[in-house]
Amino acid sequence: MQTEIIPLGTGAAIPVSDRHLPAMALIHDGHVLLFDCGEGTQFQLLRAGIKSLRIEAIFITHLHGDHYFGLLGLISTFTLLGRSTPLTLVGPAGIQTIMCAMPGFDQAHLPFELTYKELHEGFTREVVVETEAYTVEARPIEHRIQAVGYRFQERSRPGRLDPDRARALGVADVKDFARLKAGKPVKLGGGHVVRPEEVVGPERRGVSFAYVTDTRPCAGGVELARGADLLYHEATFTSELYERAIETGHSTAIEAATVAREAGARRLLLGHFSARYTDPSVFIEEARTVFQNTEVAEELKRYPI
Amino acid sequence: MQTEIIPLGTGAAIPVSDRHLPAMALIHDGHVLLFDCGEGTQFQLLRAGIKSLRIEAIFITHLHGDHYFGLLGLISTFTLLGRSTPLTLVGPAGIQTIMCAMPGFDQAHLPFELTYKELHEGFTREVVVETEAYTVEARPIEHRIQAVGYRFQERSRPGRLDPDRARALGVADVKDFARLKAGKPVKLGGGHVVRPEEVVGPERRGVSFAYVTDTRPCAGGVELARGADLLYHEATFTSELYERAIETGHSTAIEAATVAREAGARRLLLGHFSARYTDPSVFIEEARTVFQNTEVAEELKRYPI
Repeated sequence: MQTEIIPLGTGAAIPVSDRHLPAMALIHDGHVLLFDCGEGTQFQLLRAGIKSLRIEAIFITHLHGDHYFGLLGLISTFTLLGRSTPLTLVGPAGIQTIMCAMPGFDQAHLPFELTYKELHEGFTREVVVETEAYTVEARPIEHRIQAVGYRFQERSRPGRLDPDRARALGVADVKDFARLKAGKPVKLGGGHVVRPEEVVGPERRGVSFAYVTDTRPCAGGVELARGADLLYHEATFTSELYERAIETGHSTAIEAATVAREAGARRLLLGHFSARYTDPSVFIEEARTVFQNTEVAEELKRYPI
Repeated sequence: MQTEIIPLGTGAAIPVSDRHLPAMALIHDGHVLLFDCGEGTQFQLLRAGIKSLRIEAIFITHLHGDHYFGLLGLISTFTLLGRSTPLTLVGPAGIQTIMCAMPGFDQAHLPFELTYKELHEGFTREVVVETEAYTVEARPIEHRIQAVGYRFQERSRPGRLDPDRARALGVADVKDFARLKAGKPVKLGGGHVVRPEEVVGPERRGVSFAYVTDTRPCAGGVELARGADLLYHEATFTSELYERAIETGHSTAIEAATVAREAGARRLLLGHFSARYTDPSVFIEEARTVFQNTEVAEELKRYPI
């Protein structure tokens, strides 16, 4: 079950020619989730070769325009294409009111079901999407306005059954194979019991991805990134502009790396760079002094998790 | 006084990878006007090398999202950049209510003065912007919802004074040169009168540009394009899809060409092509059967008027 993320926009609020506004696609077994949706996201989806109609849920971190103005065009395109499958839109309180103020965005005008899930100031943790294959959890993070971070968690799957070993132990019936795979013991004809741990390998851990932007380094970010296979964390500034990071509610590259280390994340991807930086290698250099396994997020590159 | 237009987006509502959403910049003597502002316009301005802060007025044709969603990001960027010069936003009735419903877009939150000019259903003609150098006129056009077309008209300027000829007739005083240039006669010392037409060439006609989209071919479009140096007219379809053009309130290439011919326009630029067309040469072929001086609008190309 392949899971990958594709950064669609790694810039901050002011557009620059080589970085787009915040958006990140996650593809799991053909299902697409979108984290943030800055202006132009639908074009970046086209360039990435991702079918926008496959997006099942969109997670908005906060209501600064650079993180959600692309919703308007994307949802209009869904309407023009006659989308019929439901869509979930998760974000801070107020997002539904804003969207519904635009003509054509109330449920009566949409050809598909659009479900809003709003996270209200003061919430501490909430599982906002749950399927048989994965969950997405939200936690508050710390920005100038209410902001939310997210964690995608693939569910762990049962271990693999070794059919040769099972047969050698006398298991023959298809139903008994299924019982063992489901973790239940099987009593054979002669009274002998085969326990699942004799024939089934260890549970396969699901992969995880944390999306943490825009924020100061904070407990919510650390909890979302706890043991994550991949953490995307904003690094708007380098430490030279530490004061500016505090003033504006953002993080430096070193702070992002510190979150990754504290959380025991496996890999760190940095993004949301201020327009003043033309060479992102400075972020890497800083961050690697704290957390070695750091990369700069490249737009449209596919990162398997 | 150079005037040029730069198509920023020549696509229709559904994004395709090689055509952007509707927007057209006009540059006159360093002043920038913007006609329509689809999602992503601020990125196209960057790519065109046009400083967005120089935009003095924006003219929206109608309130379908593909023609105005880019306003949100563009105006946010103005705020982030600390714009202080006034901006005029012209569009159909309702545009101010929509914009002000977005957080941060009411006058109290903007660092510059934003003046709305709304055109109400039933208006017939209105000069919406007027400076010493040009006027912009609006007229209703015919779409599925209220839609407005625009005409930029540079003011005509006095003819050039021929200084050698003036001197030969005895004019010497700087003030007399100025009087003649202003169209007034000058009485010389000996009582001889020099009339302006003796030394000043013909009035220099101002250039004109009509922006007509989205619409059926209509009287408003013809009047806007009357004798225009350049007409940009939508051609969403070729005549094969004539019925579809009627249903959706759009024009075929032949209809656009017919408007250009009826109006006596000098040149026709076609745009707003439906996503189904990958090769725009079909539009040219059709249109030229009616109006020879037709081109397909190319994004980011500069068209002097």
